[in-house]
Order: sequence, then C-alpha cells, then structure tokens
Amino acid sequence: MERLNELLERIIQRVNVNLREPLFDVGPYVRGLVPWQQLVKFYAFYGITPHHPLNFHFSRSNLSGSYFLGKCHVTDSILYKTDIRGDELKRKGDFFATEGFTIPLQEDETIRVRDCFLIKTLVHNNSHDPEHPEEFIIQNTVSTHFANIHGSVVEGCFMGPFSTVDLTTVHDCVIGEYAYVQAGELSHRQVPAGTVWVKSGERFEFVFRHHPETLQRYVRFRPGSPPEGLFMEFIDRRKADYQRIFDVVKLQTPFSMPPGASFNRYAVIKPKTQIGRNVLVAQRAYIENSWLGDGANAQENCYILHSRLNGNNVTAHGAKIIHADLGPKVFVGFNSFLQGSADHRLAIGPGCIVMPHTIIDLEAAVHIPAEHLVWGYIRTPQDVAAHSLPLARLSALSGEETLGAMRFKGDGRLFVEGFKNRIEHILEANGAYCDGAAQRGHAQQSQDISFNLIQPYPEGELKGLYPTIDIHP
Amino acid sequence: MERLNELLERIIQRVNVNLREPLFDVGPYVRGLVPWQQLVKFYAFYGITPHHPLNFHFSRSNLSGSYFLGKCHVTDSILYKTDIRGDELKRKGDFFATEGFTIPLQEDETIRVRDCFLIKTLVHNNSHDPEHPEEFIIQNTVSTHFANIHGSVVEGCFMGPFSTVDLTTVHDCVIGEYAYVQAGELSHRQVPAGTVWVKSGERFEFVFRHHPETLQRYVRFRPGSPPEGLFMEFIDRRKADYQRIFDVVKLQTPFSMPPGASFNRYAVIKPKTQIGRNVLVAQRAYIENSWLGDGANAQENCYILHSRLNGNNVTAHGAKIIHADLGPKVFVGFNSFLQGSADHRLAIGPGCIVMPHTIIDLEAAVHIPAEHLVWGYIRTPQDVAAHSLPLARLSALSGEETLGAMRFKGDGRLFVEGFKNRIEHILEANGAYCDGAAQRGHAQQSQDISFNLIQPYPEGELKGLYPTIDIHP
Repeated sequence: MERLNELLERIIQRVNVNLREPLFDVGPYVRGLVPWQQLVKFYAFYGITPHHPLNFHFSRSNLSGSYFLGKCHVTDSILYKTDIRGDELKRKGDFFATEGFTIPLQEDETIRVRDCFLIKTLVHNNSHDPEHPEEFIIQNTVSTHFANIHGSVVEGCFMGPFSTVDLTTVHDCVIGEYAYVQAGELSHRQVPAGTVWVKSGERFEFVFRHHPETLQRYVRFRPGSPPEGLFMEFIDRRKADYQRIFDVVKLQTPFSMPPGASFNRYAVIKPKTQIGRNVLVAQRAYIENSWLGDGANAQENCYILHSRLNGNNVTAHGAKIIHADLGPKVFVGFNSFLQGSADHRLAIGPGCIVMPHTIIDLEAAVHIPAEHLVWGYIRTPQDVAAHSLPLARLSALSGEETLGAMRFKGDGRLFVEGFKNRIEHILEANGAYCDGAAQRGHAQQSQDISFNLIQPYPEGELKGLYPTIDIHP
Repeated sequence: MERLNELLERIIQRVNVNLREPLFDVGPYVRGLVPWQQLVKFYAFYGITPHHPLNFHFSRSNLSGSYFLGKCHVTDSILYKTDIRGDELKRKGDFFATEGFTIPLQEDETIRVRDCFLIKTLVHNNSHDPEHPEEFIIQNTVSTHFANIHGSVVEGCFMGPFSTVDLTTVHDCVIGEYAYVQAGELSHRQVPAGTVWVKSGERFEFVFRHHPETLQRYVRFRPGSPPEGLFMEFIDRRKADYQRIFDVVKLQTPFSMPPGASFNRYAVIKPKTQIGRNVLVAQRAYIENSWLGDGANAQENCYILHSRLNGNNVTAHGAKIIHADLGPKVFVGFNSFLQGSADHRLAIGPGCIVMPHTIIDLEAAVHIPAEHLVWGYIRTPQDVAAHSLPLARLSALSGEETLGAMRFKGDGRLFVEGFKNRIEHILEANGAYCDGAAQRGHAQQSQDISFNLIQPYPEGELKGLYPTIDIHP
C-alpha cells in the first residue's frame, strides 16, 4: 500500500504549505489515524436517481465507505466514510443571488475535492461563495471525524473533530475541535476549539465559547491519537449497528412508509421507531425507539434515541437527541448533543432554535419554553437562564449584549429572521410540506434511488486506490 | 421504461437485417422473453484485480445481473445476467499465432458488445479471429439462455438456448438450441438444434446430431415462450440458492481455502462440499455434496451435485454432473448433462473426454472406461458402445468413419491431440499445476479481486438503463 502512503504524505505537504501561516503541521494528527486496512475494507457508493444531474469523476483516490450523490469530482484524495451529498447543487440556468449580485449559472455546479484527506466528514448543500458559484471546492484540506463542511468552499484548512464550517469560505484556517463557524469569508485564522461563531457582515455577530475543561470531557484531539471523549464513545458504542446495513446490497425498510416519507437504506432503524408523513431520514442517521412527527427530518450522522419529535423538526447533521421531547418545529443545529435520561427527560417547547454545537447533558429534568434560542452548555434547570433567550427578546435587541459566556452584537431581528428563514428553507427543500403533488422535496425524491457500490484494488501496488471512474447520464 | 423498449426494438431490427438471408425474424422469440421488471431488479458487477488490464465502458445499455472482468465495452445492448469474463484477453506485445501468421498485438484486447441482447450468455476467453485479434466483437446478435460464446467473434446471429459457438467466427447465422459449433468461419448458415460439430479445415470433422425427439425432452424453444424442457427445469429448481449470495456485498467462503484454490464469491456452495489444492470454482458455478480433487475446475454456470471428481477435472461452462464419479483429468465439455442417480451412479474413467453437449441421463449404472471419447446420448450400459471410442482407436483413424449417428472424417490423431492440448491449456491457465510460486493461473489470481456493483436508473424516462460509465486504471 505504498501508493496510499505516498498519497497521504503528498496531501499532508499540500495542507502544510497552506498552513505555514498560521504555522501548523497536520502530519502528527493524521499519520496512522486510520488503519490502512480500513481503506480497503469498505466500499464507496453513489446514488443514481432521475432527479439529479449525474457526473462523477474519481481518480487517484481512496473512497472507502464514502457516499456520493450529484456531480462530484474527486482526485488525489482520501475520503474515508465521507458523505458528499450533492442533491442541492445549483443547476445551469439558476441564478445565485448574493450581496447585491444576481449571478446566472453557466453550468451545473460540481463538488470538486482535490488533495484532501476527509475523515467521516459531511459535505453538503452548495457553494455559497459568489466567486465560485459553479464549483463547490474543497482542496488541500484535512478534516477529521464528523466535521461538517456545509455550503463552504474550503482551501488549505485543518478541521478538528466535530467542527463545522457553515456557509463560510475558509482559506488557510485551522478550525479547532467542535468549533462552529458561520462567518462569511475567513483566511489565515485559527478558530479555537468549542467556539460557536455566527457573523453576518456588520449586521450581527453571535459568539459563545465552550469552557476548555467542559470540552475535554466531550471531545479532545491530540497528535498521535484518535479523537477521544464522550462524543466518540457515544458513536463507537453504536458502530456495530451499521455493519448489517452495509453488508447487504438491497434492504427493505422494516415498516411501510407513510406517504411522502423516505428512510434512506443506509440509515439505522432500531426497534420501536415510528415516522409520520413527509419524514426524511438521511443515510447514516440512527433512530431508536423514537417518534418522528410529520415533516421531521433527521440528517446525516444524527442520532435520535428514546425521543419524541412532534413534527417539522430539523435535526441537523451530527446532532444527537436522547430521552427528549421536542415540540413542533424545534430546530437542533449541527453536532448538538442533547441528552436527557429515562429519569429526567429534556423537554423543548415549540419553535425553539437550538444553536449548532450546543451541549445539553442533564443531571435533572429540564424544560425549555417555546420560541427560545438555546446555546452553550446546560446540565440543570439553573443553567437554562444563562444559555437561552426568548426569540422575541432577541429580536428586539440591538447593539451589544452579553449573557454568561455569550456575546451578541448587532440587529437581533435580522439574526432571528435569518434563522427562521433558513429553517423554513430546510423544511421546504426536504419536502416537509409536500401535499403529494406540490412542494416535493428530498423526502419524496429520495424514494427513487439506486446505489452503486465501488471498491478499490484489493492487492498489488495500487492496493487501496480506486480505479479511475467517470460516470455520465 | 419506453427507452428500454426502443432499445430492444432497435436490436431486433439490427439482428433481422443481418438475418435476412437466411430469412429469420428474432422478434417473436425475444419480445416479452424477460419481464422488464427483472432488468431493474438485478445489479451488474465488475471485478477489479491487480492482474488484468482494466478498461470498462458501458453506455446506453441495460446490464442487469451481468458480470464483467477485463477490458469490456458495451453499447446499445441489453445484457441480462450475462457473464463476460475477460481475464484471458490477449495483451499488447503478445503474438497471436494462427494458420502460418504470427500477428503482433498493438494494444490490449477488448471485448466489444454492440447492439446485442444477450440473455444469461457466457462470453469468455479471447478472439480467435485473426482478422480481429485485438477485438473480441459481438454485434447485432441475440443469444438466449445459457448460450456460450467462446473465443468467437459473433456478428448478426441468433443463438438458441444452451447453444455454443466455440473458437468460430460466425456471421449472419442461426444456431439452434443446444447446438455446438467449432468450425472455423461460418456465414449465412443455419445450424440445426442439437448438432455437435467440430471441424478443423481439411484436417478433421466430427458431427453428431441429437434426435429431435430426444432434444425436445431436454430443451425446446418456441416463439412467444421461454425455453422449456428438463435443462430449464433443473436450473429453475436451484435458482433460489443464488439469491442469498447476490444479496450480500461481501461473503466469506464457509471453509478455509486449501493452498492455491479459489471459490468465487458468486458461486453457490451447498453443504458437504470439499475442494483440494488449486481448485478453481467460477462465478455462478453450483457445487453440492461433492468433492473436487486437486486442480479441478468448475466453470461458470456448471452444476456439480453428489459427485466425486478425482483431480485436474475440467467441468466446462454450463456442464452438469450429478451422482457421478470422475477419474483424474476427465474433461466434461460445454453444457453437457451427466446425470446418474443415488441408485445407479455414473462412473467415468481417467482421461476421458466428454464431448460438449453430451447427454448422459441414466436408467441404470454406467461405467465408461479410461481414455475414451464420449458423445451423444447415453441412458444404459448398452448405449455406451455407440457413443464412445477409445482415444487410442480414434487416434489411429483416418478417412471416414461412422458410429451410430456420429460421423468422423480426417485425421483422428490430430483431433485427439488437439483436444488433449486444449485440456492441458485450460488446466495450466486455471492454475491447476501451481506449486505456490510458479505456474500461477486463474485460481491463484482470482483470490485477489474486489467487486463493484452497479445499478440502473430506478425511475423516470431512463428507468432500466445504466448511466454511461468509464473505468480506467
């Protein structure tokens, strides 16, 4: 597997060249991080549907366990169980409106990954970079376990485990573990671990940072070791459940689908799971003993256990919801970890927005009232006050406000409206409001999909590399 | 699935254009022959190994359930559960020696299938046509269930069920059901059902024809119906056993492999199967309660049940061996059907050559002595005399001889030597004589293979068609 080693070293060099300012060496983090044998063990798969332009190109890469949909070009990269979901890529003829420009698209958008090592990373949505509206570029980048790259052009970056770059262009940046960034355009920055940072030009800015000691408990990443902490333990305990669904070629859902609903065949469905109409459960989501009401969606890598979601809930990529009751239209952001227990459940009222990268890990039952913004770290009812605000109050804010470790600056109304609009967009795109004919979304379109499974050279000099593959309509 | 219908009609027209002399309309044979839903249900798969040049191109085709290895180009065709095994294609730099010419090859050989409907057909080996040494062409052709195209360029032909074209170039021919042809170059010919015809220029010619009434019992094919008869019933009874092996992505062989042996993961292994060193069991072979001695090989679509093969046996494509004991180096030709029973077994002595398309279907125990050529139709010990000859006697023949319905003309020694050489070549190529390092063949090289699974569009206008796929190293 020498060629694989050469490939990794070449990627490390490319990333380090980008990260010479800030000076950062990704090598010690990634050498030996994934046992090479794993890169031969898993197959990659891509979806064929009548609804998405089809164009795949893979060359000089390992793709083990990775998932592709839409137009994707991958060269000189290692994508280990990475999810590249290209079903929201922009189309030829679309117009991309941003900051006063309306840019007509000359061709279908393509996800281009070059010289990257992406580990269990989610890549989704489409490029929000007006400089590259037809290319969703990820280049010279290392991203580690369960990081999310969402609508973000990423060049020359290192992303720690459970970090998220959302609707942000990042060049030559280091994103610490569990940091969430939604901040326009960044270059040559180090974002400390546990930072939750939402910034929209001069309009508003929200910042919270998890206390380093808290964070250690949930996720830590040191050179020479894989990521550790409660998040990894939670995931590792459930790893074996994925085995079966990847072992078989075709899989029937164990119950009949309600109208408009779809359960990806690569999702895990554990006993006592019930879903309503227009529910969308994405690949690698994990649902156990839970009820997903009409229009709810469970995105990639999310876990919903022993919980009741009362409809039109968005559970974003990587979020975990355990022993919780969520009112209608509760939004749970990327990689949030909401854990009640059988004895003391978590209740979240209708219309709440749980910020990405929020940790609620209860020692006692907690109830969060309707229409609140929730963030930070909550363990007891007493923690709620310092880590939530009624959306109405937030909407009235302007200027600068701090609450505990959270600092808000700017126009609260724009912040709340921005969030609400985005949630509506997600629900619409996912088909939550489909009446059978109109307002079809991913839930309805994902019913018509077939998967193609690809494997690397099993032996020889090229062991672990995939052949060059081009797929067109 | 309109596009699939259009494709079929286009293929029918192309074949009929070729078959206007002899006037033959393939349409009534093939319309409705395979329920269209089947063409969406099965996945196709191709093998990636370090040992074979890799080059696949599939376009505007359905490939349901088909298997590909080596360099294969398929366009405008329907290949339903077809086996295209390109591991013996010639390589760039090889020399192809034939009839006084030694032709250097300018590029790796490719199997090219264009405008064809091939149903459960086996395509194997390499082009023996000196006019196309770098292209194994199959074009404007319909071939039906369990036909074999072996080393044969086939253009503008119709092949009936269980027919075989072996080392023969055929243009504009109709090959009847269960006919076997190995005859150099043919054009505008109809080969009647049940003909077994081996001709090598002026050197020798062997002809046998199954009685039409006998043949009816085993295989018959009428326009508007699928093939019928004992052969189809035998196969259909065992169809369900293939389901499980195609349902899972990776499959471990239920016993540990002896040195040098390989059992294709798409073969069926039923209980009480034992194999020796350097045994090769190909995809879609079916082995039950049988013992395959060192160096035996079981080729695609063969069935070996309740039998003992004592080593270096060749069981060719589509052959069936039931309740039989075969001495060392017994060769059983294409699509032969050898059926003893628990009460009266079939015994075949060492070094026998069972001609392709032989039927031995016993009413009483039969023993065929060592080093005999066997052909035709045998049910009782009394039938043996008229359907076998000692190889030594055959070698001494020259001129013309008839024995029962068999007619032989020419040089018996060349005929026997030709067969013996071919058997040795098969054993060598399959690795029967491998000592661990030297004389490696398919058995050893097939251990290092990974399979890639591809599916068609599941819905929409293109339903049933596969996307265009190009694969290179």
